[in-house]
Amino acid sequence: MKRNKFKLLAALAACLSFQTFAQEVGQVERLISPEITQSNDVIFRLKAPAASSVKLSGNWMTMVPNPNGQGASRQLVELVKDASGVWSTKIPAMAPELYGYSFIVDGVTTLDPSNLKVARDGTFRTESLLYVAGPASDLYWAKTGPKGSMQQVWYDSKTLNLTRRMQVYTPPGYEDSKASYPVLYLLHGGGGDEEAWPTLGVAANILDNLINAGKAKPMIVVMTNGNPNQVAANVISPNIPVANLPVGGMGSMLFEKSLVGDVIPFIENHYRVKKNKESRALTGLSMGGLQTINTSFEHPNLFNYIGVMSMGFADLSRFGVKVDASQRDQQIEGLKKANPALYWIACGKEDFLIESVVTMRKKLDEHAFRYVYRESEGGHTWTNWRVYLSEFAKMIF
Amino acid sequence: MKRNKFKLLAALAACLSFQTFAQEVGQVERLISPEITQSNDVIFRLKAPAASSVKLSGNWMTMVPNPNGQGASRQLVELVKDASGVWSTKIPAMAPELYGYSFIVDGVTTLDPSNLKVARDGTFRTESLLYVAGPASDLYWAKTGPKGSMQQVWYDSKTLNLTRRMQVYTPPGYEDSKASYPVLYLLHGGGGDEEAWPTLGVAANILDNLINAGKAKPMIVVMTNGNPNQVAANVISPNIPVANLPVGGMGSMLFEKSLVGDVIPFIENHYRVKKNKESRALTGLSMGGLQTINTSFEHPNLFNYIGVMSMGFADLSRFGVKVDASQRDQQIEGLKKANPALYWIACGKEDFLIESVVTMRKKLDEHAFRYVYRESEGGHTWTNWRVYLSEFAKMIF
Repeated sequence: MKRNKFKLLAALAACLSFQTFAQEVGQVERLISPEITQSNDVIFRLKAPAASSVKLSGNWMTMVPNPNGQGASRQLVELVKDASGVWSTKIPAMAPELYGYSFIVDGVTTLDPSNLKVARDGTFRTESLLYVAGPASDLYWAKTGPKGSMQQVWYDSKTLNLTRRMQVYTPPGYEDSKASYPVLYLLHGGGGDEEAWPTLGVAANILDNLINAGKAKPMIVVMTNGNPNQVAANVISPNIPVANLPVGGMGSMLFEKSLVGDVIPFIENHYRVKKNKESRALTGLSMGGLQTINTSFEHPNLFNYIGVMSMGFADLSRFGVKVDASQRDQQIEGLKKANPALYWIACGKEDFLIESVVTMRKKLDEHAFRYVYRESEGGHTWTNWRVYLSEFAKMIF
Repeated sequence: MKRNKFKLLAALAACLSFQTFAQEVGQVERLISPEITQSNDVIFRLKAPAASSVKLSGNWMTMVPNPNGQGASRQLVELVKDASGVWSTKIPAMAPELYGYSFIVDGVTTLDPSNLKVARDGTFRTESLLYVAGPASDLYWAKTGPKGSMQQVWYDSKTLNLTRRMQVYTPPGYEDSKASYPVLYLLHGGGGDEEAWPTLGVAANILDNLINAGKAKPMIVVMTNGNPNQVAANVISPNIPVANLPVGGMGSMLFEKSLVGDVIPFIENHYRVKKNKESRALTGLSMGGLQTINTSFEHPNLFNYIGVMSMGFADLSRFGVKVDASQRDQQIEGLKKANPALYWIACGKEDFLIESVVTMRKKLDEHAFRYVYRESEGGHTWTNWRVYLSEFAKMIF
């Protein structure tokens, strides 16, 4: 059983917050978890002497159909307890990737308390993160070199009658330059918020690494909150327990209106931005993919680069979402006439929305509408969305 | 048992990430936890049918000495299980405050999965947050009105040979103004990092609310990472498990050198800043208090407003930290000659470092050094540090 080498410093840290953390004093040893070996075996550990069962749930795990026939679940891994009450398991040769995982202790999902690296996945959960380095994940980490900034900025939305927050990435060199930059508007999915792309999407690291390698143009990236009745993610406010904030508003077209009416004008008035179609790109995943479809149809001359990730012409009525598809033919013709430089559609073979992409492509083909289709392995996952952003960012501007 | 009213939307959100979250489909009902009643009773709930024991650990709880005589622990509250496997407890009439809490399930500390509001407390843990509104916590929430921005910005530290990240708050109106602003440098404690003041310290909300009420001058607030061997908090990087990053470097004077040699020049070159002593303030808590003491002694003419929170002339050798106090007399005389407009010392009556503050005040008194002493109730807690920031910000510039 490996333990942290920094007992002394951990003790210091604990002591310096004695009042709050006194229960840790005298027992501040920390397990090492996750431990990554030379061959990318990963060992997970949890001290839980009183638990009857500890399982590992990771987003790399195979999905298996539920016994009741409804949906599917991860094939969880059971940990084994040693004499000191430490549970562990080793996952062999993990592929390079940024993973999310949790322990399940007697049925309750928990973080890995030894791992300080966490991310909140929208309204779903907060997970521990595991980064396995390698070629496939090389764009995701914060390398030495010039870096852009990420700004949490508030803006007035007249459309929604709210003061709302978004995250704005400015590229390396922005602060010391007088240049104007093109802008990518980057939208999250249902259940997410404006912190999704900056955390799980590692958008800043991907952009820094691509720009520093000369593989993407320096650009500003705007990450909005796509839930039209939410002022911001994770914001401190009385009366409204955050868990109860409804998400989505899909099909209402409210976010789409606000993006065009509030967000773009704010960005173009507050940042050094090239204010023309050639310098605007729009992409989003899932719900954000629908918002991308809708916005580019409603405003065919606004964006020169359009990317639809993990979404197509979907019938979402079983989720209570009504998508107005009555104008599709005219919309496609309108966008065809506007002739954007790139209309990109990306979806995983196992995505539960892949059929909606088939439907969309068929419809676009009927109109001889020019688009690029990128089909990947896998499904409706951040693994894919990070790859899609990495690819889309190289093709624009 | 109360359940979330937004089943449909939760179902939608879950379905839209089907591949990753399919196990939630069909069972997406969420408990309401915490539930705050009209009289500020707070009900905590956790579904854990298989657990043998669920306890609540909150930072409002009384500390009681450990049975073994070493340190003290929170007086935890046991939850009670109902027939459906939901554990709950009610804490009556909670005082207005921003609290952190966790559940302890069969001995393992977990987040409240029903509560999306979380904050990471440095190298200690990630906790669920509970905001109880009222006069004492009124500065802490994101009210409607003009808002400043929070920027994560990277800078080169020649002193530390690292590219490092800090968080910079710019006040409401900064973006649309040509004015120059004074700057407060705001330092965290041992075990913390540059995300401490923006999250647990709710620095942006406190500053927005004070500035909008005309109670504090519009100012820029710079929140650094005070651990000199850390590039940034929670950053994705291979090879170095984040939990193993040593913290502190207290006593080395490395952070202090970098603050003066790297941080201040970067801020004064990249933001619209008034570059004079009258427009610089420095404050910090605990380790950051020591860094404040050290920096103002080394550079007596740099800051006109100096605030030391929860730290004094402490002997930290029992933590392995060597503080060089050999020049104290000359340093005090030097700072006395520089005559800063405010030297403010704040500490809680129950702070485990209160004796070091007594020592410090005695020494300062021997030199007839002018300072303001603020003694509060309570101890070494974020409750106090938020209050101290709220008070200090009103007295500067």
